[in-house]
Amino acid sequence: PFEVTWDLSAAEKGGYDWFMRKEIFEQPKAVADTLLGRYTAAGALQLDELHIGEDELRRIDKIIIVACGSAYYAGLVAKYAIEHWTRVACEVEIASEFRYRDPIIDGSTLVVTISQSGETADTLMAIRHAREQGAKVIAICNTNGATIPRESDAVLYTHAGPEIGVASTKGFLTQVAACYLLGLYLAQVRGTMYDDEIAKVMEELAATPPLIQQVLDSLDAIRELAARLVDTESVLFLGRHVGYPVALEGALKLKEIAYLHAEGFPAGELKHGPIALVDQGVPVFVVVPPQGRDQLHDKVISNIQEVRARGAFTVVVAEAGDPEVGAYADVLFSLPKVSTLLQPLLAAVPLQMFACEVATLKGYDVDQPRNLAKSVTVE
Amino acid sequence: PFEVTWDLSAAEKGGYDWFMRKEIFEQPKAVADTLLGRYTAAGALQLDELHIGEDELRRIDKIIIVACGSAYYAGLVAKYAIEHWTRVACEVEIASEFRYRDPIIDGSTLVVTISQSGETADTLMAIRHAREQGAKVIAICNTNGATIPRESDAVLYTHAGPEIGVASTKGFLTQVAACYLLGLYLAQVRGTMYDDEIAKVMEELAATPPLIQQVLDSLDAIRELAARLVDTESVLFLGRHVGYPVALEGALKLKEIAYLHAEGFPAGELKHGPIALVDQGVPVFVVVPPQGRDQLHDKVISNIQEVRARGAFTVVVAEAGDPEVGAYADVLFSLPKVSTLLQPLLAAVPLQMFACEVATLKGYDVDQPRNLAKSVTVE
Repeated sequence: PFEVTWDLSAAEKGGYDWFMRKEIFEQPKAVADTLLGRYTAAGALQLDELHIGEDELRRIDKIIIVACGSAYYAGLVAKYAIEHWTRVACEVEIASEFRYRDPIIDGSTLVVTISQSGETADTLMAIRHAREQGAKVIAICNTNGATIPRESDAVLYTHAGPEIGVASTKGFLTQVAACYLLGLYLAQVRGTMYDDEIAKVMEELAATPPLIQQVLDSLDAIRELAARLVDTESVLFLGRHVGYPVALEGALKLKEIAYLHAEGFPAGELKHGPIALVDQGVPVFVVVPPQGRDQLHDKVISNIQEVRARGAFTVVVAEAGDPEVGAYADVLFSLPKVSTLLQPLLAAVPLQMFACEVATLKGYDVDQPRNLAKSVTVE
Repeated sequence: PFEVTWDLSAAEKGGYDWFMRKEIFEQPKAVADTLLGRYTAAGALQLDELHIGEDELRRIDKIIIVACGSAYYAGLVAKYAIEHWTRVACEVEIASEFRYRDPIIDGSTLVVTISQSGETADTLMAIRHAREQGAKVIAICNTNGATIPRESDAVLYTHAGPEIGVASTKGFLTQVAACYLLGLYLAQVRGTMYDDEIAKVMEELAATPPLIQQVLDSLDAIRELAARLVDTESVLFLGRHVGYPVALEGALKLKEIAYLHAEGFPAGELKHGPIALVDQGVPVFVVVPPQGRDQLHDKVISNIQEVRARGAFTVVVAEAGDPEVGAYADVLFSLPKVSTLLQPLLAAVPLQMFACEVATLKGYDVDQPRNLAKSVTVE
């Protein structure tokens, strides 16, 4: 007798083995939905859930992004963009540290919290503390009506749809996109960018979903790589500028679901300690900035040479057509060309998939890794 | 025939097997020397190498500490104290990232750089960039007449004496002490602390060298621990508040000289990912804040319970007489009682020694670890 076995959760996974994998593949749509309707035909950015007056936003003299886990890394990415676009100083802080360190905040501080679930206890405590000190709080959140948006002055929803896998993927990407929208909105309100400059960035942002799809369509090399490295004991990730938090996120994914000793470093810190870990065969992932951004690109190339000279197995994530990386990459993963600040929306994807594949090959429960809960509702 | 074999370097090590070990034991004197003569009989803080006018220091509206490696962690410790004492926002940034991210600095920004050698290339580039933007720069440095102090507006020398071991120890402790002196000086100039409050902190700082000696006198337990854990593949370090950078520093020492996968985390982030790494027998060092500092102490206790419930081997560094930690510590290392902000000057010491012992037992060259140079004079 032939028996059909299936359960509801398999059906919800739409044919994927894991929610995480499904959510990785949903990222083009998730990012597109997050950007949807934000830019009016008249050329103005419109964040309709943002109920803080423009005058108040003009008076802001400091931005503090507060978050935990992957959302914290999304904040670290956003810092580079927000400072560049608005010229307002932007600090990024881990919520559990922010709350108990006596932070300097007042009525002209804008606190931006990032939480997929909107129920993260540490972040919620940070919001309450910030508002007591008179700061305005904007929540970036994926869950309508959750506690964090309810307790904030304004909210900017990511429209990623439900994220079930404990390790955040589309949550992270849409948080970066939402932070960028907020940064551009502040730049518009404060006049630090011209309308045509904002329009250009918005256009490029709007063009990323099909590029994310391109990345998703080319992940076979990552699957092969995972099979090759499944028995590795540790992995290092290097990046600079916005590629640094991408490296941190890549390492966190591996920790969360593959239980590997993975750590992300700013590539410039390599010589100040971490390079001692590099030995024959140690896999080192390097996120290479696009060419032409200051000397960043060249410096990362020389970091790759350094680790390779010490025996590292280098996995290089770089833009397509980069003529210099090939010589130093044991494995090269090419990304579609985008400008520096948008690269994280593409570069994070192969790292997510690598973790998902390694964990799957190791036979772990990718969606429910040991010791972790999807939303951390206790401090 | 009896042959006496010795070489100059053995003689210079004063009977120690490694410069690093010698330098760990020099820390009481190094910290005392750094504090020496800073506090006048009239009750005023005197930083005589500080050639920036008091009026200029009163106009400062932001402090950015820029450093690499252990010096960066010393800066992270200092941030908590400087913000608390001066109420001026203090950011801490890795030099190689600061330089290339288009940081927001102007004439009212005080940039504080920390470099033991005074020749760190990334930090030097950061100084040049900051001064071009009109910022004032104070260098905290251990080497008279090095390039960084020469190119800065002012310099505050740590008086640690030459540090030969590549892994910084007395360098780190004296950098923390020097940052604290600077913080208290700024608080004095700006009037954010009363003279008697400053006097009280200075008194407590001045009392730390004999307490560091007490810690050094009680390191046998750490030696035994190192022997027990010498074959471990990875170690996690947890801390909160000023204990968080101490955790980072403890992990960096192990990376640098024992080539172990060691990573430091803010204890509050545990549930947001890193706890997935905790499995049966994984050693987890936890730096416990002194009792009575907000709810910090209790929160760290509950973090210890969490990792222990998942099988971790817990090494707890806590103040003597803490009644709550004993139940959850597989190994308990007690520190003399000091206030929260001064605890790093004691808590770092057993972690330094642990790394030194593990590396020695593994047969590695503690003073000249693979791939690393003492001062990184290229970017």
